[in-house]
Amino acid sequence: MALVVQKYGGSSVATAERIKAVARRVAKIFDGGDQVVVVVSAMGDTTDDLIKLAGQVARHPNPREMDILLSTGELVTSTLLAMALEEMGYKAVSLSGAQAGIRTDSTYRKARILKIETKRILEELAEGQIIIVAGFQGITDGMDVTTLGRGGSDTSAVALAAVLGAKVCERLTDTDGIYSADPRVVPEAKRLAEIGYEEMLELATYGNKVMQPRAIELAELYDIPIRVASSFNDNPGTLIHGGVSMEVRNKVRSVAYDMDVAKITVVGIPDKPGIAASIFVPLAKAGISIDTIVQNASVNKVTDLTFTVTQNQMEEALKVVKPIAKKIGARNIASDAKLGKVSIVGTGMQNTPGFAAKMFATLSENGINIELISTSEIRITCIIAESKVKEAVRALHRAFEVEV
Amino acid sequence: MALVVQKYGGSSVATAERIKAVARRVAKIFDGGDQVVVVVSAMGDTTDDLIKLAGQVARHPNPREMDILLSTGELVTSTLLAMALEEMGYKAVSLSGAQAGIRTDSTYRKARILKIETKRILEELAEGQIIIVAGFQGITDGMDVTTLGRGGSDTSAVALAAVLGAKVCERLTDTDGIYSADPRVVPEAKRLAEIGYEEMLELATYGNKVMQPRAIELAELYDIPIRVASSFNDNPGTLIHGGVSMEVRNKVRSVAYDMDVAKITVVGIPDKPGIAASIFVPLAKAGISIDTIVQNASVNKVTDLTFTVTQNQMEEALKVVKPIAKKIGARNIASDAKLGKVSIVGTGMQNTPGFAAKMFATLSENGINIELISTSEIRITCIIAESKVKEAVRALHRAFEVEV
Repeated sequence: MALVVQKYGGSSVATAERIKAVARRVAKIFDGGDQVVVVVSAMGDTTDDLIKLAGQVARHPNPREMDILLSTGELVTSTLLAMALEEMGYKAVSLSGAQAGIRTDSTYRKARILKIETKRILEELAEGQIIIVAGFQGITDGMDVTTLGRGGSDTSAVALAAVLGAKVCERLTDTDGIYSADPRVVPEAKRLAEIGYEEMLELATYGNKVMQPRAIELAELYDIPIRVASSFNDNPGTLIHGGVSMEVRNKVRSVAYDMDVAKITVVGIPDKPGIAASIFVPLAKAGISIDTIVQNASVNKVTDLTFTVTQNQMEEALKVVKPIAKKIGARNIASDAKLGKVSIVGTGMQNTPGFAAKMFATLSENGINIELISTSEIRITCIIAESKVKEAVRALHRAFEVEV
Repeated sequence: MALVVQKYGGSSVATAERIKAVARRVAKIFDGGDQVVVVVSAMGDTTDDLIKLAGQVARHPNPREMDILLSTGELVTSTLLAMALEEMGYKAVSLSGAQAGIRTDSTYRKARILKIETKRILEELAEGQIIIVAGFQGITDGMDVTTLGRGGSDTSAVALAAVLGAKVCERLTDTDGIYSADPRVVPEAKRLAEIGYEEMLELATYGNKVMQPRAIELAELYDIPIRVASSFNDNPGTLIHGGVSMEVRNKVRSVAYDMDVAKITVVGIPDKPGIAASIFVPLAKAGISIDTIVQNASVNKVTDLTFTVTQNQMEEALKVVKPIAKKIGARNIASDAKLGKVSIVGTGMQNTPGFAAKMFATLSENGINIELISTSEIRITCIIAESKVKEAVRALHRAFEVEV
């Protein structure tokens, strides 16, 4: 007897009917002889509705209160799913994050899991119960509820799969897998049967919104395979795991994109130690997330520093950077809020030359200008005009004959 | 510095705007120099909506799951009120039933409070916090959430007032006090400035739906004055307490009614020991609540036994009683599902003759037939035709010149 962790996203549990459909899916796994721990998100748009409600009573809702408020969404789903399973004659019990033993630090709104006390879950499993855990939430040592931030239910599921030694963590939503490119942009995009953790991590970080990087990192750390599939059909989806076969490794696996990029360039900075820190420490303090940073080689002890942020943070970033630029003697500041990025990802490019050259040539042939380049061992990203992003995705998908 | 417990009902917190209005009310008490512990109900119809949702996934929702589900309603209100107070610059913290230390037995859906561990509340009060407690809920020793049944938030509030030694428990809803009769039936009904616990208990038990008897009993036990008032205005409302002045005690204080009465009479029962038990034990096992029981004096060792139930339980009660009646050799069963009851209440009638006679005469003068009579030391109840109840209330209110 093995253990399966399943996680159902908000759209999969958006209505009473869908919760009953999920109950039937869960029951099938249980009937197959496996123990089942299910992690659920809040129903449909519940979380957004609660955030809206909080916005109506306070401009800056207290984060501790916000976390208790938001945690109710997952409690509702977990109890309803347990009821539906009991109605079908199965033994099922819902557990809040606290009851499931998910202990976190006290960073409200984006708490980190410190440990999971599995006593209660193991007891309930031993009694033959199907366990339904409210995702996205945990509890501090002081017994205050926390939430785990965006994609938090995925993190709950992977963490539980890790501590319980699950054979697989199935992530079931309205998305039926990981594709070679966004099928809305590239109609011929194909679903990948499998993908490695690192590749998935790069994809998630560079524009594929299916999963948050955090849950993937955790899965990699504990070597838990994640199956990403749809809860609305029985397609096998995509298996994210460490044992991806050699053959498929030697290719570009997927083309990712992100339409939300703004660029700020500080022009003509005296090239002295400490300059980068003098810019990026204040930006971090202002809560601005920096994505790509590029510093050109200096000419005559003068250099340009470029970084990217999300488009809605550009104005705020400029406000922070302008006085600093003046103080450090920079010549000028340039900015552009209409950018996007396109990335090719695949462990195949790790030791193989020519991927970068082919990417640049493909973009050039399509009349697309490259603003910035950033790379990792298994990824090449080009920042280009937002208006050219979809065209670039299609051209790259064709050029690399992305294999699935 | 004294401590005030306030409880706000569902209609008082039904919208974000109303929650902000409640925050201003709470802040005013705090500014006056008192410590404040607020108990809140779920917003508007939230509890009913959650019950409906549960009904869509299961015909008989598991009671443990139901309690977690329902408890989310009060969590939402408590966090929103705490946020609203913080936004106004006050220190406020929401506590779930568990965090507030409300320990109950594990009778889901109608748990009883066993004790309240006040450590957390006292710590938060000492830090100058306004405490917002999610009403209607507690937690078992096994850390499972329970709810306290109908009117449970009132019970939460009175219990907290008792253990914290509050000077008063204010119960704020859309009802602005206790009246000499239902003002929808008797337009000239007046709000009582004060009323004793026992009188209020009789009123609540015999048709005045403002408060559940349970919270009143608890208040009497710990001698906590309850002020019943509206959250929508500043009227003083009604003070329920033990120190009601002698003068107002010598009167009928209020006329209560209930339109939902059905009567079953088992006719011609051999008058032997154990007969009553043979009827009422099976009814209790079937979950049927019996209200009034009347057994006539026996004539020739044969008697009639009459009892009342709510109208929607009559058919079920008949199903239980018919075979028993046959078995014990009763002659017949009669039933009537179209009854109601009207009661006069006042400690004044305790040692004063003539109240009963005047009540019966008033009903008779108005052509109203009395089906059954039941009394306590401070109450006289007549069961009459449902269609005559409102007329009876008006006539009795006039006849006794009910004083406020």
